[in-house]
Amino acid sequence: MTNRQKPRILVCNDDGIDAEGLHVLSASMKKIGSVTVVAPSEPRSGMGHAMTLGVPLRVKKYSRNSRFFGYTVSGTPVDCIKVALSHILPEKPDIIVSGINYGSNTATNTLYSGTVGAALEGVIQRIPSIAFSITTYENADFTYAGKFARKLVRKALREGLPPDTVLSVNIPNISEEEIRGVRITAQGKSRWAENTIERDDMYGNPYYWLSGELQLLDDDILYDEYAVRENYISVTPVSIDMTNHGAIKNIRRWKLNK
Amino acid sequence: MTNRQKPRILVCNDDGIDAEGLHVLSASMKKIGSVTVVAPSEPRSGMGHAMTLGVPLRVKKYSRNSRFFGYTVSGTPVDCIKVALSHILPEKPDIIVSGINYGSNTATNTLYSGTVGAALEGVIQRIPSIAFSITTYENADFTYAGKFARKLVRKALREGLPPDTVLSVNIPNISEEEIRGVRITAQGKSRWAENTIERDDMYGNPYYWLSGELQLLDDDILYDEYAVRENYISVTPVSIDMTNHGAIKNIRRWKLNK
Repeated sequence: MTNRQKPRILVCNDDGIDAEGLHVLSASMKKIGSVTVVAPSEPRSGMGHAMTLGVPLRVKKYSRNSRFFGYTVSGTPVDCIKVALSHILPEKPDIIVSGINYGSNTATNTLYSGTVGAALEGVIQRIPSIAFSITTYENADFTYAGKFARKLVRKALREGLPPDTVLSVNIPNISEEEIRGVRITAQGKSRWAENTIERDDMYGNPYYWLSGELQLLDDDILYDEYAVRENYISVTPVSIDMTNHGAIKNIRRWKLNK
Repeated sequence: MTNRQKPRILVCNDDGIDAEGLHVLSASMKKIGSVTVVAPSEPRSGMGHAMTLGVPLRVKKYSRNSRFFGYTVSGTPVDCIKVALSHILPEKPDIIVSGINYGSNTATNTLYSGTVGAALEGVIQRIPSIAFSITTYENADFTYAGKFARKLVRKALREGLPPDTVLSVNIPNISEEEIRGVRITAQGKSRWAENTIERDDMYGNPYYWLSGELQLLDDDILYDEYAVRENYISVTPVSIDMTNHGAIKNIRRWKLNK
């Protein structure tokens, strides 16, 4: 990015092109950069790092109220990034922002999240990327989230992000006055207590809905889920390197060559 | 697991119930344990850690040649693990094995892989889990892969796996004699050079196929993709904690509270 021009910002999400969080994030980014929106044509929550293989993707122009313009991709959040970088954007963006997602992407949700997935794909393609979520599925007040996103993106463009690392940001759904500050956290160990529901259809055959509840397994503000429950904004550096480096020595002792 | 009974082994994959690698893995596991197969009803490669939200899942019994029995789930590999653990298996399995997948799950493929995704879901649910892949998409010779899988599972049941950590195993598609040994590796930095294809349909409207080629960016046998290219079996400990712990201090210096 040269000083002469505004930063080029690619905006994506996993809740789809109609989601309010996407529009808030796009509007916020327009105040500091040149924005292109590429988002799934439909909600694609829980898609993690899924990509579409064996099915062609469609791209459509999208506009709303003659004020909001973007592109939809008939696939996953990761697909959106791949198609945006290869066929929609004339130049590499300076940064990718994903969200603002409905529902925390803390703890093990990091793995399920399509919002984080899109940002990780950006980093795989060597573009600084940040994922934003708000801690509610309904009645979100995005006012401060949009403002904080802008502050963080400015900072990230100035400081640069660590290599191969996304920032996953989780913002409590409360007013600016109630937010106690920002914590740089680790991904927590909280995970879903499964409660998959079995029901019978009209023929008496069973079907299953995945369901459950996130169990808090962290007891320190050093972890993302705990921090947001304590009314802090949580910023977690998330790596595309999933190696448990500490375990390598341990497994070597198994002497698998014998 | 008590000494009195055979280990209970859940077998899953992402290539679907008909894939040869699944049948090889199941047959191999039957020699050491009591096996249940739960696999996607169709191939679901590249699904990463995707789960199905907002659509009910169907489970069907499956048999082939009156010798192979299993269950299919109409969803992703992660869905298979969730439904297997909540509704199919009467007891928690002692171990989950996923694969044997067609195509390497090395380097950044770790994130895209549904085979690894299923194993990670097992670990989230606190069950030791191992993912197996062979380094080819066609003409696989699973003979040694099936044998090595059994050796490693025996070892894992005896030694125990590190907490919150999957083993991702990549086996070269060569004969036992040609295999040079086993390396405990880190996830490599190799990634796909994107080459998404644009074509026009019969109406002249464009569609896109995701495509590309894995670029080797590792130059040391300490990394998975390099190790398999050197004819070693690669075993990588993969964690559900994606935090870049080293970057936390760095980001704290940004002083986002000001």
